[in-house]
Amino acid sequence: MLFHVRMDVAIPHDLEPNHREDLVATERKRALELQHTGVWRHLWRVVGCYSNISIFDVDTNDGLHAILESLPLYPYMTIEVTPLAQHPSDVSVAVGPR
Amino acid sequence: MLFHVRMDVAIPHDLEPNHREDLVATERKRALELQHTGVWRHLWRVVGCYSNISIFDVDTNDGLHAILESLPLYPYMTIEVTPLAQHPSDVSVAVGPR
Amino acid sequence: MLFHVRMDVAIPHDLEPNHREDLVATERKRALELQHTGVWRHLWRVVGCYSNISIFDVDTNDGLHAILESLPLYPYMTIEVTPLAQHPSDVSVAVGPR
Amino acid sequence: MLFHVRMDVAIPHDLEPNHREDLVATERKRALELQHTGVWRHLWRVVGCYSNISIFDVDTNDGLHAILESLPLYPYMTIEVTPLAQHPSDVSVAVGPR
Amino acid sequence: MLFHVRMDVAIPHDLEPNHREDLVATERKRALELQHTGVWRHLWRVVGCYSNISIFDVDTNDGLHAILESLPLYPYMTIEVTPLAQHPSDVSVAVGPR
Amino acid sequence: MLFHVRMDVAIPHDLEPNHREDLVATERKRALELQHTGVWRHLWRVVGCYSNISIFDVDTNDGLHAILESLPLYPYMTIEVTPLAQHPSDVSVAVGPR
Amino acid sequence: MLFHVRMDVAIPHDLEPNHREDLVATERKRALELQHTGVWRHLWRVVGCYSNISIFDVDTNDGLHAILESLPLYPYMTIEVTPLAQHPSDVSVAVGPR
Amino acid sequence: MLFHVRMDVAIPHDLEPNHREDLVATERKRALELQHTGVWRHLWRVVGCYSNISIFDVDTNDGLHAILESLPLYPYMTIEVTPLAQHPSDVSVAVGPR
Amino acid sequence: MLFHVRMDVAIPHDLEPNHREDLVATERKRALELQHTGVWRHLWRVVGCYSNISIFDVDTNDGLHAILESLPLYPYMTIEVTPLAQHPSDVSVAVGPR
Amino acid sequence: MLFHVRMDVAIPHDLEPNHREDLVATERKRALELQHTGVWRHLWRVVGCYSNISIFDVDTNDGLHAILESLPLYPYMTIEVTPLAQHPSDVSVAVGPR
Repeated sequence: MLFHVRMDVAIPHDLEPNHREDLVATERKRALELQHTGVWRHLWRVVGCYSNISIFDVDTNDGLHAILESLPLYPYMTIEVTPLAQHPSDVSVAVGPR
Repeated sequence: MLFHVRMDVAIPHDLEPNHREDLVATERKRALELQHTGVWRHLWRVVGCYSNISIFDVDTNDGLHAILESLPLYPYMTIEVTPLAQHPSDVSVAVGPR
Repeated sequence: MLFHVRMDVAIPHDLEPNHREDLVATERKRALELQHTGVWRHLWRVVGCYSNISIFDVDTNDGLHAILESLPLYPYMTIEVTPLAQHPSDVSVAVGPR
Repeated sequence: MLFHVRMDVAIPHDLEPNHREDLVATERKRALELQHTGVWRHLWRVVGCYSNISIFDVDTNDGLHAILESLPLYPYMTIEVTPLAQHPSDVSVAVGPR
Repeated sequence: MLFHVRMDVAIPHDLEPNHREDLVATERKRALELQHTGVWRHLWRVVGCYSNISIFDVDTNDGLHAILESLPLYPYMTIEVTPLAQHPSDVSVAVGPR
Repeated sequence: MLFHVRMDVAIPHDLEPNHREDLVATERKRALELQHTGVWRHLWRVVGCYSNISIFDVDTNDGLHAILESLPLYPYMTIEVTPLAQHPSDVSVAVGPR
Repeated sequence: MLFHVRMDVAIPHDLEPNHREDLVATERKRALELQHTGVWRHLWRVVGCYSNISIFDVDTNDGLHAILESLPLYPYMTIEVTPLAQHPSDVSVAVGPR
Repeated sequence: MLFHVRMDVAIPHDLEPNHREDLVATERKRALELQHTGVWRHLWRVVGCYSNISIFDVDTNDGLHAILESLPLYPYMTIEVTPLAQHPSDVSVAVGPR
Repeated sequence: MLFHVRMDVAIPHDLEPNHREDLVATERKRALELQHTGVWRHLWRVVGCYSNISIFDVDTNDGLHAILESLPLYPYMTIEVTPLAQHPSDVSVAVGPR
Repeated sequence: MLFHVRMDVAIPHDLEPNHREDLVATERKRALELQHTGVWRHLWRVVGCYSNISIFDVDTNDGLHAILESLPLYPYMTIEVTPLAQHPSDVSVAVGPR
């Protein structure tokens, strides 16, 4: 089950620099792990912004929230979640006229 | 080069029904073609809306505009285009610590 | 899996009156059916608006979209879907300190 | 009398950590109490956000404000209240054609 | 129990003139009745707009919705309802320091 | 001459607590005075918000600004002023058909 | 007493052309009259828009609403009114340090 | 050449009080000077806000920016500039029917 | 003197097709003329929209409004004008450190 | 390939002054370099704002993001990127009727 997720990051400028670096590094590690498991299907940078647009593949809403809440940068992100459905013209599912 | 595209469709309710059906059918055909060529990489329905979120893979901005403008439903859509870049934590490009 | 859904209805004022009445009557019938099956868990009127706020309980995003799209008033509604998760302080799931 | 309430929490990042923990713990305790009394009828987490969507059942507007104002996290929340009415198609009240 | 209500009227310009006049006249009659019963406590014109700001005094949310829905111009109005509570500095209720 | 005024209060969370208490106490005193003189005709709390909706009765715009600017919490409020006029259906002024 | 007024004009494109011309001509005549009386103190065109920004000098809110409502294009305008006060640094009123 | 300028002032509450007073005093002095030269044609306070609405008369866009940037409060203001043109119904330029 | 202008075109879908074609053709002719004179310095299409972003070089605000108002599609466009000034880091004007 | 970029700068008022000066100076140097290479084609100041509107000419989205992210003021800017395409009425590409 796919969800479109946009994350906008805004780390306070007076956060202790080491803490900031740690957060960013562990965030990256966590993102790689979640991509390896197949849960975090796509991850793109929005040009010009400290933001990403992602596609998650999860079984439940609760599962998705647990993942997002576990991200190290979660306290500093504004997250917008949009549920996706199969499009009738998606070539991978379309077989005949409709 | 990837672009995130959201299309919201609003066909006037007094459009002639046959014309409407034709538009939707040719739109679907065109969407399938563009997916087969690899230009229209992803196509998802936004749950609860006559809208889609799509990922296009094109060589130029001009190429993307020409494709969008060629869609049969183009006159009845509001389209928002967001350029995407590779994310440093994208697993397909990430190799070492960063 | 729960979803928060707000539907704002805007039937064009020049729609043929009989057609309008039919739409509203079949919409009502469909809403009752979906409540009986347990899929449409809650249905409230927003005071002062031709709008409702609802809670749906479905297995998948695709299931939710199929239901919403099947509503007779679907072409005349603006729908906003918000995925819900269990709240850690929800009394029905909370057992101990947290 | 039902009210739809959305609460978005934004605790300042430089709040003293112990004070923060206390706030969150007492907020949770208070939420459980209010659910036991039946006033706080539903409490859901918005996926991806430090926010909840709730349904309150109170006798008066004054009663609702007193409850919201008494929440420990009240100074750090943006709250939006929407009055709800019975929907004519609500299955629990609908008996005949309408 | 008080509610703040703003009504913005937008009658379609192609509505049949006699029908329009009837609507406005019966709206006015209904507004006077509801003021006489004490339910519609205040009614002000917003300067420069076909809009009013009103205060309603009702026992329940359902009562308020029934009244608003019964207004002849209801189909052509956008209505925003804000629940009000007693203010701690309201002179009619304040008695001592607080 | 009536004006509709909404005040949203946002006192910075790091303001010195005694200073805060003083501000709130003198604000309350000032609000009571202005109600006694008849200038501040109505004062309501917006449910769930540190906000009020008020009606002021003043002779001039300058008079209104002087009053608002004199409020102790003025530096911490966002204020929106809407001029009101007599509504043709206001029962206190309506005498015959119109 | 000064008010800042912005008027955005949107005449429906299917309005009968002669009626439209009449409206615009009588609007112009009325605007000239009101400027001669000194009530409509300033009238500027917003570059690129069918809009004006104006300053009105009136004795009361009711007086302002009566004038705006009397404009021939009133049914086709969105009007936003902002009450103005003397600025402490306005050279025409400033006499000494402040 | 006229420009409509709105300035909203937001001085951080933790700015050193003497520095703040200096800023406000020099801002006032500068505003008076610019009014004497005829560049700052009108200056009004927006009722209830730490904001002004002004009309500037300058020869070029560069001239306007240089003036605004030179204001002592410039770093603490949000400024919105709207270019104005002569209105065809402006009484000072209108001579005949149009 | 440069101005940034964005034009969003929305021709009503029920406009007579020949009239529409004429409008678009004369608009194009006019755009070419204005580019030849140097007034319309840049003209770009916004990808995915029936919109353009343009740079105009004019002597006065009145001159700019006269040009925009003369465009055949003017009645069907929403236009937003932003005055531009020389940037201190613009390479064509920058000569030394600043 | 052209992109329209708007950058709004908001440097925190409590940033260390020397650090601020350094940032602004290196930003300027970097802007000049990028203009010399032809990548940063146009750079304009928005009148009244600490903002610029720019046109970039790059080969890819990734190239554009790398450039923007490398700007010294990047952490303090809100950037909005709009992809541009050739306009059919652009005089530099238009040759015949269309």
